[in-house]
Amino acid sequence: MNTSTTRKLNGSNHLPLGDQRNAPFYGKDILSVKQFIRDDLTYIYEVAHEMREMVARIGTFDLLKGKILANLFYEPSTRTSSSFTAAMERLGGSVIPINEVRYSSVSKGESLPDTVRTLECYADVIVLRHPEVGASALAAKYARKPIINAGDGVGEHPTQALLDLFTILEEIGDAEGLTVTMLGDLKNGRTVHSLSRLLSLFHAKLNFVSPAVLEMPAEIVSELADKGIHQHAYTDLDPVIADTDPVIADTDVLYVTRVQKERFASEAEYDEVKNLYVITPETLKQAKKKMIVMHPLPRVGEISLEVDEDPRAAYFRQMEYGLYTRMALLAMVLGKA
Amino acid sequence: MNTSTTRKLNGSNHLPLGDQRNAPFYGKDILSVKQFIRDDLTYIYEVAHEMREMVARIGTFDLLKGKILANLFYEPSTRTSSSFTAAMERLGGSVIPINEVRYSSVSKGESLPDTVRTLECYADVIVLRHPEVGASALAAKYARKPIINAGDGVGEHPTQALLDLFTILEEIGDAEGLTVTMLGDLKNGRTVHSLSRLLSLFHAKLNFVSPAVLEMPAEIVSELADKGIHQHAYTDLDPVIADTDPVIADTDVLYVTRVQKERFASEAEYDEVKNLYVITPETLKQAKKKMIVMHPLPRVGEISLEVDEDPRAAYFRQMEYGLYTRMALLAMVLGKA
Amino acid sequence: MNTSTTRKLNGSNHLPLGDQRNAPFYGKDILSVKQFIRDDLTYIYEVAHEMREMVARIGTFDLLKGKILANLFYEPSTRTSSSFTAAMERLGGSVIPINEVRYSSVSKGESLPDTVRTLECYADVIVLRHPEVGASALAAKYARKPIINAGDGVGEHPTQALLDLFTILEEIGDAEGLTVTMLGDLKNGRTVHSLSRLLSLFHAKLNFVSPAVLEMPAEIVSELADKGIHQHAYTDLDPVIADTDPVIADTDVLYVTRVQKERFASEAEYDEVKNLYVITPETLKQAKKKMIVMHPLPRVGEISLEVDEDPRAAYFRQMEYGLYTRMALLAMVLGKA
Repeated sequence: MNTSTTRKLNGSNHLPLGDQRNAPFYGKDILSVKQFIRDDLTYIYEVAHEMREMVARIGTFDLLKGKILANLFYEPSTRTSSSFTAAMERLGGSVIPINEVRYSSVSKGESLPDTVRTLECYADVIVLRHPEVGASALAAKYARKPIINAGDGVGEHPTQALLDLFTILEEIGDAEGLTVTMLGDLKNGRTVHSLSRLLSLFHAKLNFVSPAVLEMPAEIVSELADKGIHQHAYTDLDPVIADTDPVIADTDVLYVTRVQKERFASEAEYDEVKNLYVITPETLKQAKKKMIVMHPLPRVGEISLEVDEDPRAAYFRQMEYGLYTRMALLAMVLGKA
Repeated sequence: MNTSTTRKLNGSNHLPLGDQRNAPFYGKDILSVKQFIRDDLTYIYEVAHEMREMVARIGTFDLLKGKILANLFYEPSTRTSSSFTAAMERLGGSVIPINEVRYSSVSKGESLPDTVRTLECYADVIVLRHPEVGASALAAKYARKPIINAGDGVGEHPTQALLDLFTILEEIGDAEGLTVTMLGDLKNGRTVHSLSRLLSLFHAKLNFVSPAVLEMPAEIVSELADKGIHQHAYTDLDPVIADTDPVIADTDVLYVTRVQKERFASEAEYDEVKNLYVITPETLKQAKKKMIVMHPLPRVGEISLEVDEDPRAAYFRQMEYGLYTRMALLAMVLGKA
Repeated sequence: MNTSTTRKLNGSNHLPLGDQRNAPFYGKDILSVKQFIRDDLTYIYEVAHEMREMVARIGTFDLLKGKILANLFYEPSTRTSSSFTAAMERLGGSVIPINEVRYSSVSKGESLPDTVRTLECYADVIVLRHPEVGASALAAKYARKPIINAGDGVGEHPTQALLDLFTILEEIGDAEGLTVTMLGDLKNGRTVHSLSRLLSLFHAKLNFVSPAVLEMPAEIVSELADKGIHQHAYTDLDPVIADTDPVIADTDVLYVTRVQKERFASEAEYDEVKNLYVITPETLKQAKKKMIVMHPLPRVGEISLEVDEDPRAAYFRQMEYGLYTRMALLAMVLGKA
């Protein structure tokens, strides 16, 4: 390992990628969006932006050559798992895929602390997806190597929130004071909870559009209110209120999530509202020219296929920003950025 | 990435491997054998032969270093999946394995177009195995990155057909005018359908040996007849016809496929014919000294184990030709051959 | 491939890693601990120790760059599979993971010999885990490439035994004449059977502590007796025998295995003895200051969590020695050590 100097990539204002043992995230765990202050985000996104440029320029490079990631998934998530695998491989590192935990000896009663203490004998960093809230924090308590939380039940999924914010920053240029409208199931969607928290650091104005039974939890509304965040709740993107524009007209970022039939008391209740939460070209007619539509994917009908052609449809680009964000986090916790 | 010149490998008549952005397959999809004219095949097999020599000489090399393959298998196929993985790794590239789609969020109702548009954010090329006919063409319609069809239901499996023909070319030297006998289930076997089409470009004579209920579909027979291909159908490798040799005597390539009991109306009907479609050392006594026996594998009794010792048994070598063929295709669609 | 000379790593007493085509294990299978004489073990452990130092110094290196391992697991074993994957990746090689055999075409009746003859077309070495005794020997009979047995049913798991002994050597310095106490299910535990055989080469004294129904098989006791090994059997770590110390007092290595409830005729019978086979800090109060506690993992309660803090708890370090042992074996059978 080269311990002497950092590498200037092209002599100008690029971040130095290379040995950064004194960098703030070296050896750290990534467990929750709550751990970040705004300066942390600035740093992460500078590195992520650098990763974007490097991938555009050369595709893959050897910043993490020789490093090994254990990709430990107790529940399947092809998207997240593939994204971390690609991130590690684009940095020249290797991956130990552990996707089939439910069938394996790991699941035969072995405790999570024992499993991570075994895997850290083989790997340099562990990405963990687990169905139970708090699993990543538990793993991190026992592990010597960095743990990156890739989703723990209804708890946190910090890398999703980080990539969501990175998408906004790269697409719009700044998150300061933006109007962000979150739509769909705001009660159960951990992505909108985490993103709300991150956006509060940028004084965003938040619109919450959801059926009454799926509204943003009071606990989060209260937490955001304490930080002075403007919040408005609606049950319809186009509420009939005298002398007001529809919600969509002021929106800089429309963040769509899935509304699942199972969440409603009856099918009739679901049928009554479902069409209010489907985005079509018609919906976007009232929107700004410069705004974006996001979705954590997979979508199942919440955004009609015709919207894909609209340049404001950012959800596939969002996947790509996820790659750069995860490349940045891996490089940072391994002391290379 | 080196964009300046191509690399001459050893100064003589070897193909230049290296940047070939103007090459005919750069960025293309590999969806069906029907897309190839004979010149295409010549090109593919020159590259595949070069791959064979490179592997023999140095095992692995860095032609696709930094490139990432998403190996997307909606149904399990260890053989095909492993072959593509090895092909990518022998070229210095990396693989994102996605084998357990049925258990994953990808399968929770997400459409194939959305899945491939996500994966192409991470990978440079996608190999797709899917149970539905036309899946690869659908994926290719939406994807910006090349799609390689690794089998779509009863539809096509073009890389299998290409490796089958490559086996014939490397083992026999030329396919022009050969007598190729296909044996077994010719009705349901997509490998024999695709190979027949490829062989028609080389004016092969085709013998079809199968139970009546499993004969080559009329549609394919008719398509081949239109191209002027000589075809003969039999129900027995050794038909009792006055003054004629058994079919095997003239055969240059015997292509064996499995006859499954389930295809017959009754077990009695199956028992009556099953032994006609098992190849033994006895079968080969009547065959030429210079001919080959092929099988797409896995076999379950269609070729007796004693045949493995016969130098004409080419079915394991066929697997190896599959590696070279897939290396060639990956390099070509990624602009490196 | 460099064929000219071996590489001296640092000029002193380190083993030369590099081309070792004349080395005794080049091209060999690793099937059983019975195949090793003491000189073999010395050689393996010199290489494994070298691997330990290399990993400590540089993490990963390119001794097996370009080599491909087919990791063929017919039954899940995350621990062993991950360990081999990491070993190959730390040596710069690549892995074809084949974990889901039960769902794949490989399992549709194809014979193991056919499967390995296919995989060796793609890979340079095959690691095989299979539920049937003798599977590895069968695979090795047909394969041209080296087979490493990663466990075949109740048969052998030689790399586990080798890493167990390596742990003892690295932790204690020498195995000659040590007192090794094996505890738990000694009847069904293949790890204790294999380790006993290896320890017999070092004139170890063996204590067997187990419930009567789970004692060491007579066949192994007799085999060890023939070699002049001192053996003592107990049903309790702290037997009430006049004028004797508890077994633990003389123990240099305490090797713990799991006692499963299902092995007993009744739950009452199990409840009666279960606490005798759980290691606690109390147990270790009577032990030497310089001794180690081992366990093949996963553990499910056989060693209390408080013991983890004790420096004598060697079971997680044991996992790490597994990595070095497997790196050594891979390098050796591929002619690089």
